[in-house]
Amino acid sequence: MDAAKRIEKALAAALAMGGGTSGPPRLARAMQHAVFPGGARVRPRLCLATAAACGAEPGLADAAAVAIELLHCASLVHDDMPCFDDAATRRGRPSVHRAHGEPLALLAGDGLIVLAFQQLALATKRAPARGIALIRIVAEAVGSPNGIVAGQAWECEDVADLAQYQRAKTAALFSAATAAGAAAAGLDDAPWMLLGERLGEAYQVADDIGDAFGSADVLGKPTGQDEKLHRPSAVRELGLHGAMARLEGLTRAAIAAIPPCPGAGDLRALIALEAKRLVPKELAASAA
Amino acid sequence: MDAAKRIEKALAAALAMGGGTSGPPRLARAMQHAVFPGGARVRPRLCLATAAACGAEPGLADAAAVAIELLHCASLVHDDMPCFDDAATRRGRPSVHRAHGEPLALLAGDGLIVLAFQQLALATKRAPARGIALIRIVAEAVGSPNGIVAGQAWECEDVADLAQYQRAKTAALFSAATAAGAAAAGLDDAPWMLLGERLGEAYQVADDIGDAFGSADVLGKPTGQDEKLHRPSAVRELGLHGAMARLEGLTRAAIAAIPPCPGAGDLRALIALEAKRLVPKELAASAA
Repeated sequence: MDAAKRIEKALAAALAMGGGTSGPPRLARAMQHAVFPGGARVRPRLCLATAAACGAEPGLADAAAVAIELLHCASLVHDDMPCFDDAATRRGRPSVHRAHGEPLALLAGDGLIVLAFQQLALATKRAPARGIALIRIVAEAVGSPNGIVAGQAWECEDVADLAQYQRAKTAALFSAATAAGAAAAGLDDAPWMLLGERLGEAYQVADDIGDAFGSADVLGKPTGQDEKLHRPSAVRELGLHGAMARLEGLTRAAIAAIPPCPGAGDLRALIALEAKRLVPKELAASAA
Repeated sequence: MDAAKRIEKALAAALAMGGGTSGPPRLARAMQHAVFPGGARVRPRLCLATAAACGAEPGLADAAAVAIELLHCASLVHDDMPCFDDAATRRGRPSVHRAHGEPLALLAGDGLIVLAFQQLALATKRAPARGIALIRIVAEAVGSPNGIVAGQAWECEDVADLAQYQRAKTAALFSAATAAGAAAAGLDDAPWMLLGERLGEAYQVADDIGDAFGSADVLGKPTGQDEKLHRPSAVRELGLHGAMARLEGLTRAAIAAIPPCPGAGDLRALIALEAKRLVPKELAASAA
């Protein structure tokens, strides 16, 4: 089974456990809406690619990838809510609070966060040391002071450092994806953080470019939000050409940061390929 | 050190880790506001009492008690928000969203949920099998389909069974407190669930009585909410006398449900004492 199918199957199994047939049905529907159909599943694919390069057992790798995607989806649901971005659409259809109401959007996000840890604990019962390492890695990438919740909270401060904000809001979960892939194989996760961090920074720059110059139809979400909400952005700071150059540099730095491992060659090729997909073709051409 | 002091100290250490000095300061303040000063700390005290009765190592017991209290505080922050109860006060002062705004209240709740799992993972690095058991127990008690998030979501359904609603919204975290106390000692947690469930039901009945007949000054939060928001309530269902009788029956059932363990006698005495504190004296007298 290819990685994309594995991810969808593992996410569906997690949601079936977390929604179940015995719980409140509207909550289950809101959680489903938050996760399916998904976006590019960039983070779980990165986690599985790293896990494969390190020789991890598929069951543990799947659980790590699922946890990371559930936490990402939870953050999107909460970030879209009226007290933050008040986004009406996400992935080309109504955001969770528009479709299911604010109370269920709030609870769906909470439920997805808890489900991420729950399914990690269940999947690692027979490999508890790896399980505890995975839970630590994932929790650090999501919580405060350095995870995505902290990243979002920097938007509530009068003064925020762009690098620290983006590292917490985006790069942290990418670092967790590569670190968790290694930890699922029983390896020390620390040397794997930098790869994810660089890729996360690259992804954030690409996202800023898409927000500034992409179309809402293609991206499936409103654009021009960084300008409108006065959010820090690589495009606002560096211009389109500067941002594209930064994206290329970060991709090269990411590839150089891959630690020695059995599947390093495949991983390098995959990352180079994925990086090309980050920016819409017409933008890449116009910035060349 | 007595249990109350141990809990405050362990909570402060967890918050110092989760807020830190490097994260966004307003988020750290909102998280502090959500946890300190606390309420009666009923759930972590129950967890520590069970752990002591089972002979658990203090470090693991503290981590379990802290996780449970952080998750409880997170649920209060989110439940108080405008899209749910829109409560202006909690524990006698402004609720988190009134003091820090909705965005930071949303993020403080998220941050506390993640911190609960993070500090459990850190505390159980050298006892990973117990750590994974604790994380599973706590996650099940908080998530969907049977935990407090699901309990809150039953309020969004047109039809909800009172027993299922209260079991998820309140009893689940009490069950987790007793189950985690046993799991921290390396015991099978399943036989310990019923004790917590009965105590949780008793606590919910006492809470319903307080909401219907208590004073906002004494309780530190608005009263009359169940009637106003048409929420299920033991008082609305059974009247004051019926609810008081139910509370007594549940307390007796809880004490009868304590599994054999080294400290069973102490635990029985403690629970009988705590049960008496659940309902304000003047109400107990008026219902007698």
